[in-house]
Amino acid sequence: MSEIILNLPVWVQDFVEDSAGTFPAIEDRMRFVIELSRQNIEHKTGGPFGAGIFEQKNGRLVAAGVNLVESSNCSIAHAEIMAIAFAQKTLGNYNMGAEKGAVFELVTSTEPCVMCLGAVCWSGVKAVVCGARDEDARRIGFDEGPKPQNWVQALAGRGISVVQDVLREQADEVLTEYYERGGLIYNPVR
Amino acid sequence: MSEIILNLPVWVQDFVEDSAGTFPAIEDRMRFVIELSRQNIEHKTGGPFGAGIFEQKNGRLVAAGVNLVESSNCSIAHAEIMAIAFAQKTLGNYNMGAEKGAVFELVTSTEPCVMCLGAVCWSGVKAVVCGARDEDARRIGFDEGPKPQNWVQALAGRGISVVQDVLREQADEVLTEYYERGGLIYNPVR
Repeated sequence: MSEIILNLPVWVQDFVEDSAGTFPAIEDRMRFVIELSRQNIEHKTGGPFGAGIFEQKNGRLVAAGVNLVESSNCSIAHAEIMAIAFAQKTLGNYNMGAEKGAVFELVTSTEPCVMCLGAVCWSGVKAVVCGARDEDARRIGFDEGPKPQNWVQALAGRGISVVQDVLREQADEVLTEYYERGGLIYNPVR
Repeated sequence: MSEIILNLPVWVQDFVEDSAGTFPAIEDRMRFVIELSRQNIEHKTGGPFGAGIFEQKNGRLVAAGVNLVESSNCSIAHAEIMAIAFAQKTLGNYNMGAEKGAVFELVTSTEPCVMCLGAVCWSGVKAVVCGARDEDARRIGFDEGPKPQNWVQALAGRGISVVQDVLREQADEVLTEYYERGGLIYNPVR
């Protein structure tokens, strides 16, 4: 009752350990998080979403996350939230923007929902790189929530850059695959 | 590295155990979460924010939360997030809206930031009760993030009711007290 424990599945730990560890190009980073999203549905550990925190200048992977809402019984456990929480634990700082000489980037297989948009603001990351768009997630029944229309500009106004549509098609393919397999589309409003 | 552990401080557990456990009136519930916010600054365990999940019909306390950003080194650990995660753990369900015959309510000492607004949407709670307003938090330097202007209507459109200004002055007093004591105003953008 007095503690919340959020575990990354063992396969994520193995996948991270077996990876290059450093992903110089933005497409390399996106390919990595899309593969997380794909494996998350293969392993049936959650929804079709993957994310990672990378050091921007060299592409060093700091932390990975996948959607664990069902398996952890916690609606907070989106991929981006997991990646941010693990990165802050690894860095020993609740503000990744406070690290001298390092800029951290969130790479996510689908654009953040409103909760994760807020989490980005408080995390200290200075860049967000997105694969699939909100409308790709909505097309298969997911809900991104009451996000401000101008969320990209809102982040820019806070010194957080956004890059959209990196390998969007490949990211979207995983969403479609999840839908076609009959994966749970978690949506408390319906 | 492979798990995130978020602990409620021992004083919160004691405070919950020593409480009535059931809070029939909305003001009773608010008084409880304001007292959490006040004790959180007394105990120096985090920012001036408290929250709780209650069963709406009878006021039974399901879970309590306080802001633990600093003490847990995790920017996700807002009071509302902690309360939601603990309630879902207690209920054994990531969707509090799926519980037959029970409606759950989030009571929070200050209106939710954009991250917690999103977390509300995915939690399955059907009501949000707020003490201090966004502008009260902003006045002492906190940032509520890029929330949609019409967030109350946006939640209503999702079947989530919002009650504002319950004991607002008392809730705001704790914000002011925190500011006057020189409490950390965490804001990664500045």
